[in-house]
Amino acid sequence: MRPGHRYGLHRVVEPEGTMPQPAWKLDNSMELYDNEILIDVETLNIDSASFVQIREAEGGDPVKVGEHMQNIVASRGKHHNPVTGSGGMLIGTVRQIGQQLAGKIDLQVGDRIATLVSLSLTPLTIEEIVKMDVKTGQVDIKGQAILFESGLYAKLPDDVPDRISLAVLDVCGAPAQTAKLVQEGDTVVILGAGGKSGTMVLYQARKSAGPTGKIIAIEYGEQGCAAIEKLGWADVVLNLDCTRPVDVLEAVERETEGRFADLTVNCVNIPGTEMASILATRDEGTVYFFSMATSFTAAALGAEGVGKDVNMIIGNGYTKGHADLSLELVRESAALRQLFETKYGL
Amino acid sequence: MRPGHRYGLHRVVEPEGTMPQPAWKLDNSMELYDNEILIDVETLNIDSASFVQIREAEGGDPVKVGEHMQNIVASRGKHHNPVTGSGGMLIGTVRQIGQQLAGKIDLQVGDRIATLVSLSLTPLTIEEIVKMDVKTGQVDIKGQAILFESGLYAKLPDDVPDRISLAVLDVCGAPAQTAKLVQEGDTVVILGAGGKSGTMVLYQARKSAGPTGKIIAIEYGEQGCAAIEKLGWADVVLNLDCTRPVDVLEAVERETEGRFADLTVNCVNIPGTEMASILATRDEGTVYFFSMATSFTAAALGAEGVGKDVNMIIGNGYTKGHADLSLELVRESAALRQLFETKYGL
Ligand SMILES: NC(=O)c1ccc[n+]([C@@H]2O[C@H](COP(=O)([O-])OP(=O)(O)OC[C@H]3O[C@@H](n4cnc5c(N)ncnc54)[C@H](OP(=O)(O)O)[C@@H]3O)[C@@H](O)[C@H]2O)c1
Ligand SMILES: NC(=O)c1ccc[n+]([C@@H]2O[C@H](COP(=O)([O-])OP(=O)(O)OC[C@H]3O[C@@H](n4cnc5c(N)ncnc54)[C@H](OP(=O)(O)O)[C@@H]3O)[C@@H](O)[C@H]2O)c1
Repeated sequence: MRPGHRYGLHRVVEPEGTMPQPAWKLDNSMELYDNEILIDVETLNIDSASFVQIREAEGGDPVKVGEHMQNIVASRGKHHNPVTGSGGMLIGTVRQIGQQLAGKIDLQVGDRIATLVSLSLTPLTIEEIVKMDVKTGQVDIKGQAILFESGLYAKLPDDVPDRISLAVLDVCGAPAQTAKLVQEGDTVVILGAGGKSGTMVLYQARKSAGPTGKIIAIEYGEQGCAAIEKLGWADVVLNLDCTRPVDVLEAVERETEGRFADLTVNCVNIPGTEMASILATRDEGTVYFFSMATSFTAAALGAEGVGKDVNMIIGNGYTKGHADLSLELVRESAALRQLFETKYGL
Repeated sequence: MRPGHRYGLHRVVEPEGTMPQPAWKLDNSMELYDNEILIDVETLNIDSASFVQIREAEGGDPVKVGEHMQNIVASRGKHHNPVTGSGGMLIGTVRQIGQQLAGKIDLQVGDRIATLVSLSLTPLTIEEIVKMDVKTGQVDIKGQAILFESGLYAKLPDDVPDRISLAVLDVCGAPAQTAKLVQEGDTVVILGAGGKSGTMVLYQARKSAGPTGKIIAIEYGEQGCAAIEKLGWADVVLNLDCTRPVDVLEAVERETEGRFADLTVNCVNIPGTEMASILATRDEGTVYFFSMATSFTAAALGAEGVGKDVNMIIGNGYTKGHADLSLELVRESAALRQLFETKYGL
């Protein structure tokens, strides 16, 4: 076997000298380097911002969405949406382990795992699209993927259905960061609170802020809001379009009596919601941008533009213990689990 | 006078419902609303990431660069570079103050001010390009601009030359944030340490980290590095291309004996330096992205991709006291002032 670089640099085709994530193109030949893991892929979970973009570009036609995905992989060697810049993750079965890793890691051939690194840096082939779920962005395929030595993964648990593990692990950075950021008594605003990451953040925020905290959930659409109301974790549920910042500003101002949020978590899957996040937050408060549709410049210049001294955090998909924490939440809360079961028709 | 909205919403032409910064197009008619300030513009300081992009697109030709700028303003009503998303700022003289503001703010007609909000949200007209400095991105024009009620500004000081105030105030968020983030004894890595924001961050980092701190300055090119060496504020100066993350990783690993940076500040003006910033930083350390060429997804997914649990901050251009702090630095340090004088040929 050929020796590989810890970070997968040996797979970068262009531009030369970059890392696999920012690279335009990766070598996705499935011949293994000595520190790689080869995976037979079962299901891709396309990042929500990416999937929405593809679905809209193809008018929701499942066949065309599949072709669109195959074209991305054919041209880049990875499922790295050139418009949104984001990826997603996958589950599959370990087929082969490079000789430099075998015996040194807690994986065996045959183990079923979820990758915890983005598809935007994962060498991938798609032989065939087996099942396309245009509602959820979970796509069963025949294909293979490569995990680098530095790549994180989680073994799939026995007690949680695969589709739920896949969905939960895709967004597991969000509740884990929420647990770090929320203090007892905090006022927390969650944008896109009815989505996958949004509901997990909502549950965790309620836990961390405790009964003296105030949790404001914002979601667009009556159905989504009704579902959040039913969970009972939010003190206030607001039906608002987060691309309309002034609506959000006014509602949060009213609900907090002008104090605004200590922490705002953005879990929306469409562009143009930076200003709503900033305006919902108090001076010297924190905005946690988990959404991959966030524009760096819109956030930086938007905050400056309204003279708002807020701390703005880029949602790193990784933080220690994130996978375990999020699976624990689904085990702990029957309501949370049921919500995911309904989403994935289980 | 027509009544205006505090945040300038009345100037948004499209898309409807957005704020002036993310808006595609603003109304730049120079007829004042009652809470606006009209400015006769003297000089624009185009954001470095934006100016580099325009200059390269026009092969460095000053006339074409000027036309390019005028086209941006003609189509958007503001100098909001559609490629980089960034703006810059301006200096000029107050010509008129809306009746709702007059007497309530510390400005008089005739005062000379710098705007502290981005050009990407400032209604602007350019009648004529008077002088184009393709080296620095400072452009003297005949034209006018509007400041909203919520817009920040600073009166130009008498004891600092205008061009220096303009340059310093454009990047004043960076040293102010550095002062907040650096603790005594910290190891700080600065990328693009020879630029305008870079040198100010370098000076402030040295001050805040004290003699027990370790400051590592990274800049590309021998000349720039020699200039930094001469200042004497960095413990180590490295001549490296920050678009090559592994080079940066290895050098910082060596210089810190494997401990890496507590804080990394990115002050580079070109794309593709997210990974270098992340890899230079220790686990649970902080990356402060001041660069407007930062890609949100490249940062978020890049950190996850290498399993790096770092805190990543979006460089908010505003923080309390930022203008005063940065002007004070230039007053305090003759070397810093001289550096800016040389840059602007004073
Ligand atoms: N940082 C990371 O590592 C990471 C990892 C994974 C995902 N993400 C990002 O996190 C975000 C959320 O992901 P997810 O999987 O939780 O997505 P999701 O399940 O699709 O949830 C998105 C939510 O936002 C709501 N929404 C859409 N437009 C809205 C609007 N205008 N105003 C208010 N709410 C609106 C959606 O409502 P409807 O369903 O009614 O449209 C939905 O409830 C995405 O941008 C994704 O890219 C980041
Ligand atoms: N967040 C905010 O509010 C805000 C406000 C203003 C500016 N900014 C951003 O901050 C950044 C810096 O602005 P500035 O005005 O300080 O810019 P600047 O004076 O042009 O400095 C940029 C520095 O980066 C160096 N550099 C270029 N390519 C490099 C590479 N490959 N490796 C290492 N160093 C490299 C440059 O060296 P050479 O000169 O030799 O090319 C220069 O010293 C820009 O991206 C700008 O858009 C942000």
